[in-house]
Amino acid sequence: MSTAVSPTARTLAGPDTPFAVVDVHRTRRNIARLRARADRLGVALRPHVKTAKSLDAAALLHDGGPGPVTVSTLAEAEAFAGAGHHDITYAVGIEPHKLPRVIALVRRGVTVRVLLDSTEQAVFVAAAARDARVALPALIEIDCDGHRGGLRPDAPGLPGIARVLHDAGCLDGVLTHAGESYFCRTAEERRAAARNERDAAVAAAERLRAAGLPVTTVSVGSTPTAHAADDLTGVTELRAGNHVFFDLVMAGLGVCGLDDLALSVVVTVIGHRPEYGWILTDGGWMAMSRDRGTAAQPQDQGYGLVTDLNGTLIPDLVMTAASQEHGTLTARNGAGLPELPIGTRLRVLPNHACATAAQHHGYHVVDGALGPATTAPAIEAYWPRVTGW
Amino acid sequence: MSTAVSPTARTLAGPDTPFAVVDVHRTRRNIARLRARADRLGVALRPHVKTAKSLDAAALLHDGGPGPVTVSTLAEAEAFAGAGHHDITYAVGIEPHKLPRVIALVRRGVTVRVLLDSTEQAVFVAAAARDARVALPALIEIDCDGHRGGLRPDAPGLPGIARVLHDAGCLDGVLTHAGESYFCRTAEERRAAARNERDAAVAAAERLRAAGLPVTTVSVGSTPTAHAADDLTGVTELRAGNHVFFDLVMAGLGVCGLDDLALSVVVTVIGHRPEYGWILTDGGWMAMSRDRGTAAQPQDQGYGLVTDLNGTLIPDLVMTAASQEHGTLTARNGAGLPELPIGTRLRVLPNHACATAAQHHGYHVVDGALGPATTAPAIEAYWPRVTGW
Repeated sequence: MSTAVSPTARTLAGPDTPFAVVDVHRTRRNIARLRARADRLGVALRPHVKTAKSLDAAALLHDGGPGPVTVSTLAEAEAFAGAGHHDITYAVGIEPHKLPRVIALVRRGVTVRVLLDSTEQAVFVAAAARDARVALPALIEIDCDGHRGGLRPDAPGLPGIARVLHDAGCLDGVLTHAGESYFCRTAEERRAAARNERDAAVAAAERLRAAGLPVTTVSVGSTPTAHAADDLTGVTELRAGNHVFFDLVMAGLGVCGLDDLALSVVVTVIGHRPEYGWILTDGGWMAMSRDRGTAAQPQDQGYGLVTDLNGTLIPDLVMTAASQEHGTLTARNGAGLPELPIGTRLRVLPNHACATAAQHHGYHVVDGALGPATTAPAIEAYWPRVTGW
Repeated sequence: MSTAVSPTARTLAGPDTPFAVVDVHRTRRNIARLRARADRLGVALRPHVKTAKSLDAAALLHDGGPGPVTVSTLAEAEAFAGAGHHDITYAVGIEPHKLPRVIALVRRGVTVRVLLDSTEQAVFVAAAARDARVALPALIEIDCDGHRGGLRPDAPGLPGIARVLHDAGCLDGVLTHAGESYFCRTAEERRAAARNERDAAVAAAERLRAAGLPVTTVSVGSTPTAHAADDLTGVTELRAGNHVFFDLVMAGLGVCGLDDLALSVVVTVIGHRPEYGWILTDGGWMAMSRDRGTAAQPQDQGYGLVTDLNGTLIPDLVMTAASQEHGTLTARNGAGLPELPIGTRLRVLPNHACATAAQHHGYHVVDGALGPATTAPAIEAYWPRVTGW
């Protein structure tokens, strides 16, 4: 199993395929870009670590030290707390069974904000904080675009939920996520989604403050809106996560370019079906995931675009089908199939970095700043992933 | 992380959600059903272990002992060889870089059949067998339905490839997979696909034998055709793997019933959006995979059907959307949403068992033969999965 860099696997020609690769140069550049935006907007960053799920990648988020993070699982919370990230928001609605692990983290000195959108949840969080005699700061989820959970900013029940939390010392603030921004088509639509996201969060916060309920955190973010927002007045923090790697969905939206994509999967050619126009590889959906996020975009990129081992795009070659351990590459726009003998290694750029990364135990890391390699790019490091729940 | 059965997690009410569950009663019954079919057809079984990837599940395949298996990765080959399964077919086209691991297994006394469909591959397999002075039995992949790799039985190049292998002592036989049978609509179509699959494999074998090339193995199989074949004369072994768990795709095809589905994912209700008709859970695509196999079937089952914690189907409740760690349940056919308070545990039956199982480190095992539990089904065991490549 390709779980560590062995002495015989010092380049991308080494490990058995398929395996995930991260270009740390692009990751650094993507992180710096959002950091500069946040600084310009005068807002703190609380990156979501659910995409990379890597302590090594997270070390690049805050200039090498720990910093505020958002997590999608308690396994992430525990792993990141263990590495010194003591300011954590668990951004999935809380349920009672998960509170003991949250409380255990709090007792270790970690701040863990929980998320909720109902009186039912506020009541059991308040009770747990009282019973355990710990701080359980809670964020009320605000629905800005009908994407998933949350309360509309004008929901009748909002002040009552905040009151339950406040009376127990648990009210921290509000949080929203513009999930529908993934379906925007233009930069103007993304800017509008970012304004709407901010307006919803700020309106909810102002409504609570007007009712005498103190709101500290006003948290917004999605990768598309984080890169489009032009004014975040009233917002205290910005969340985004996918930007550490970006992917074809984000490139299709115009949030990034193809040369910003930091995650790819190295695969090997294992067969040819010239009569069908197919090149077969050993990278199927087990390596890429079943995610077909670009299927809903104007340019469907199949299961991914293909580069050579150096990361140079092979024009018009697309991974169009996937079995468990087989990928099918085909040419589009009438392009001929390139000559790729059995054993040739390629890299596939994924639709959705979060989903593709989740299929792997970790990442072999290359540094694109070193320029094209004459043989195969050197492997600089191995970054393991946090897995499970 | 829910990676083992702790003393406080003795029932499905115990481990933090989401987690994968296997009903061992249904698994045993599904295995016995195919075993009885194979016995009736007079053919050996070589089950594919890529679905469960579990040594514990594999122990049920051959009455407790080791037996012939098919694998999709060398990580599986190594794990199963370590557990005494010394008769292995690696059913993904071979490429040179993977041969050292194959040869290492052979040197441990394991038979590993490799798969190929080109002269190029036959030449390097033959050279490797000679150089390493080991047996490298090879199967030539036959394409019976244009699904993926392989040579048509009448392909001009077939005897030449077999000759290269034979001259190096590497020719073992032929293998085909009726991948298109997943798109059959009726039992008659599946029977026809099974006949076509057998005919292609047997025709290829007979063609080689007529050319003086000895063929030992004639291997066919896919879960739909394995359950439909009425005559396997000339076939030496039957492969299938999905049947250990089955799934909604197989139920939609009519290969099994919903009460044969042995794999599910336990999730917890974390929110409600009555204005949209949504119940939100903590089981998103990370727990279910992005597989939407039933989308191509007459009855689209979304991301899965929903049962209570005992496994009893909740009529008309479907998981219709998935974020990374959020699932959305909606009612169909005008059914009302059931009362499911926050904290309620449910089980979701997946589209595609291979893909959903791959999202988990292992399975909490229950025994459906014990009947409905008054509280929550007891956890009998934990079966870890083989992961990676």
